[in-house]
Amino acid sequence: MTKEQILEFIAEQKTAFISSVDRQGYPVTRAMLAPRIIEGNDIYFSTNTSSNKVKQYTENNKACVYFYKRGKFKYQGVCITGEMQVCCDQATKDKIWRFGDKLFYKQGVTDPDYCVLKFTCKSAEYYCDFKTEKIDF
Amino acid sequence: MTKEQILEFIAEQKTAFISSVDRQGYPVTRAMLAPRIIEGNDIYFSTNTSSNKVKQYTENNKACVYFYKRGKFKYQGVCITGEMQVCCDQATKDKIWRFGDKLFYKQGVTDPDYCVLKFTCKSAEYYCDFKTEKIDF
Repeated sequence: MTKEQILEFIAEQKTAFISSVDRQGYPVTRAMLAPRIIEGNDIYFSTNTSSNKVKQYTENNKACVYFYKRGKFKYQGVCITGEMQVCCDQATKDKIWRFGDKLFYKQGVTDPDYCVLKFTCKSAEYYCDFKTEKIDF
Repeated sequence: MTKEQILEFIAEQKTAFISSVDRQGYPVTRAMLAPRIIEGNDIYFSTNTSSNKVKQYTENNKACVYFYKRGKFKYQGVCITGEMQVCCDQATKDKIWRFGDKLFYKQGVTDPDYCVLKFTCKSAEYYCDFKTEKIDF
């Protein structure tokens, strides 16, 4: 798999699993909606500024994002490690805002509880049919 | 949610997502088949002794397991943090072995590449309908 193929694969998945490391050093994982934008080595998600993951990434930006696809005869998974940046600046918030987001953020695109998680890929581990492959970004 | 309800919820899911922390301090996540046994506060998985996760858990036993269910109108997710123990002793290997495992471990239940991951739950974060709840084990 090339870096481009990995990004294509993740662009097709509907759910992302993002992990952080908490203050006590434990990993913490949660499902997220698919990324809003994938651009170069960066993957953008929208989230609540008040969420635990924002607190955790503010203190420790080490992160991974995981995607998988379970077919009838084939299982594929990719875990990308890298850094997660919490973006509260208006330009980034504008960049990934969608009309329907008003349902979740009453004040719209300037809602202080709406912010962006920008993940920068460093390296990936791709798993398919009992084989693991490492890809650098 | 009580601790019992959390354990019931995870027993119904077909996929588990388990995370470790690597040597550089990055979280690493991968999908696993559903746990083999859930017993008290312990969750058992089978795996390959030669896998990266075994290496990572041997060096750092801090772990989380994540389960989720995406319904039409309801999304539920639970992340349990705790410690992961790598068990290579025959008694534990016997405990969770199933006949069909011979497909993956040619030497059967004593195959040195077959081992058990025993996760001990410490605390959980349950997410449903935009609300988060903390549960201690």
